[in-house]
Amino acid sequence: MQVLVSEVGPRDGLQSISRAMPTQAKHRWIRALAAAGLREIEVASFVPAKLLPQMADAAEVVAEAVTIPGLTVLALAPNLKGVENALAAGAHKVTLPVSASHAHSLANIRMTCDQAIDQVGHICQFRDSLAPHRRPKVEVGLSTAFGCTIQGEVDEEWVFEMARRVAAKGADSVGLSDTVGYANPVQIRRMFKRLFAELGDKAGGAHLHNTRGQGLANVVAALDAGVTTFDASQGGIGGCPYAPGASGNIVTEDLVYLLESMGLATGVDIDKLLEARQVLAEALPGEPIYGHVPDAGVAKTFRASAGEGR
Amino acid sequence: MQVLVSEVGPRDGLQSISRAMPTQAKHRWIRALAAAGLREIEVASFVPAKLLPQMADAAEVVAEAVTIPGLTVLALAPNLKGVENALAAGAHKVTLPVSASHAHSLANIRMTCDQAIDQVGHICQFRDSLAPHRRPKVEVGLSTAFGCTIQGEVDEEWVFEMARRVAAKGADSVGLSDTVGYANPVQIRRMFKRLFAELGDKAGGAHLHNTRGQGLANVVAALDAGVTTFDASQGGIGGCPYAPGASGNIVTEDLVYLLESMGLATGVDIDKLLEARQVLAEALPGEPIYGHVPDAGVAKTFRASAGEGR
Repeated sequence: MQVLVSEVGPRDGLQSISRAMPTQAKHRWIRALAAAGLREIEVASFVPAKLLPQMADAAEVVAEAVTIPGLTVLALAPNLKGVENALAAGAHKVTLPVSASHAHSLANIRMTCDQAIDQVGHICQFRDSLAPHRRPKVEVGLSTAFGCTIQGEVDEEWVFEMARRVAAKGADSVGLSDTVGYANPVQIRRMFKRLFAELGDKAGGAHLHNTRGQGLANVVAALDAGVTTFDASQGGIGGCPYAPGASGNIVTEDLVYLLESMGLATGVDIDKLLEARQVLAEALPGEPIYGHVPDAGVAKTFRASAGEGR
Repeated sequence: MQVLVSEVGPRDGLQSISRAMPTQAKHRWIRALAAAGLREIEVASFVPAKLLPQMADAAEVVAEAVTIPGLTVLALAPNLKGVENALAAGAHKVTLPVSASHAHSLANIRMTCDQAIDQVGHICQFRDSLAPHRRPKVEVGLSTAFGCTIQGEVDEEWVFEMARRVAAKGADSVGLSDTVGYANPVQIRRMFKRLFAELGDKAGGAHLHNTRGQGLANVVAALDAGVTTFDASQGGIGGCPYAPGASGNIVTEDLVYLLESMGLATGVDIDKLLEARQVLAEALPGEPIYGHVPDAGVAKTFRASAGEGR
């Protein structure tokens, strides 16, 4: 079986680090990640540079990334303007931030949940107005679907109401995001099973954070539920500037190791992934980067999956 | 459902730290762990003090620990002499190191696997010679059951041959240990299912290390297979002096958080567990101790399980 590891470090990771990675370094890092076999990379966020100066070079980064053969280039866009800019730069796919927590939605994108759902509709209408070959895939990850540091509990019925409404508005896939590292494996299994039951082939992937060390435990549960796409960030960098206490995405290196050890083909070469990590480390000297596999090395008994993904 | 978290920090953890924790500090730490609700603690190893000076006070530590009401006091003993000493000190239960890797067995206890199996037999004969009320439980954890840093692959058929033979010799329970952090969830699920199938109620628990960050992912798989006892170490301290590259047990704090979040009752109070961590930190100033939950705090939405374990 194949599993898609969608690398979000250049977006989710870099936006949570206060200094900006130089554009040329971003190019090198993204190329190194793609060379390791990552087939989808979220490379930038099309938000105003005054809000996230780390993403000021988004258009340039996308334009360079789309020249890498075989790579799906994903960009985050918080509104129609951002989507237009992402497409102008050549992005293949856009991801829209929609939060299931009312409090986080207001803090993150200054919209209510209902407004965010309506905006997905407008963006999908815009997409449908384009010539078929120019239409991007529109992906939604429902942030704080498992709980919120501001609001606390997020009602599960509401999460699925939002998922259904966002899908009905035209999103191609709707995933669930544990933005602040609150999820547990029982919840993950139950909610992703329900996501597949309710949305069918529009059910999206899992975006997990390792804030409380539960990230890979949640991956095992998500795999049980049938999830085949996982976001992860090299070196575990990441967070959310508008979700207090959010930290660290699951670490791409440790995730790939987990999946490959389980016989699931990611197409990613661990050694080359560690080379990409060097590029990250050199571009942001002194920045803490995480991961157990990079420290301990792969097991003597490790065999990468021989699946078709390679 | 209840799950037993068996704390191994005072033995597996402290033996892997080069300096010795003062005896009085061990007493304080073990009392704090028990006060947090841990019902079983592996407090010492009865090995010659010249080999592991950190364990020179084993008898004293056991004698103090058995005065704590409701606590099962476990001691490791590598041979009959060690078992006799552990029992003389008052240990309720002994755990015998038996390795499934020939190379690790020789390095760790200077015996072949066959010799180690025979020794389990001698120890069980000794146990049976005692008056019934003085007989300790004899537990075996099969080290390196999932692979070995010295030998590499460990044959799975051999692991189960050993498990059957050790059980036949009279061990009360036989668990599987991922001494060097090589296991993956597929392997864990398969092997623990088989352990239950082959040994029935003599099937023991899981001893996992987090060397490659896969520890809690393996817990989820082990729970699926029916495992209800997990070793863990406060602060993730631990390793094996005779298994190169072995590091960090799974972190008790993160494990308890995982289990309680999943609705499984451990009987452990997270806040009091964090107080015990302070005792550990103060007793070994400057020593690195690990764990995500201690750093991030519990989720706003966290509710400890209301199971009977509390």
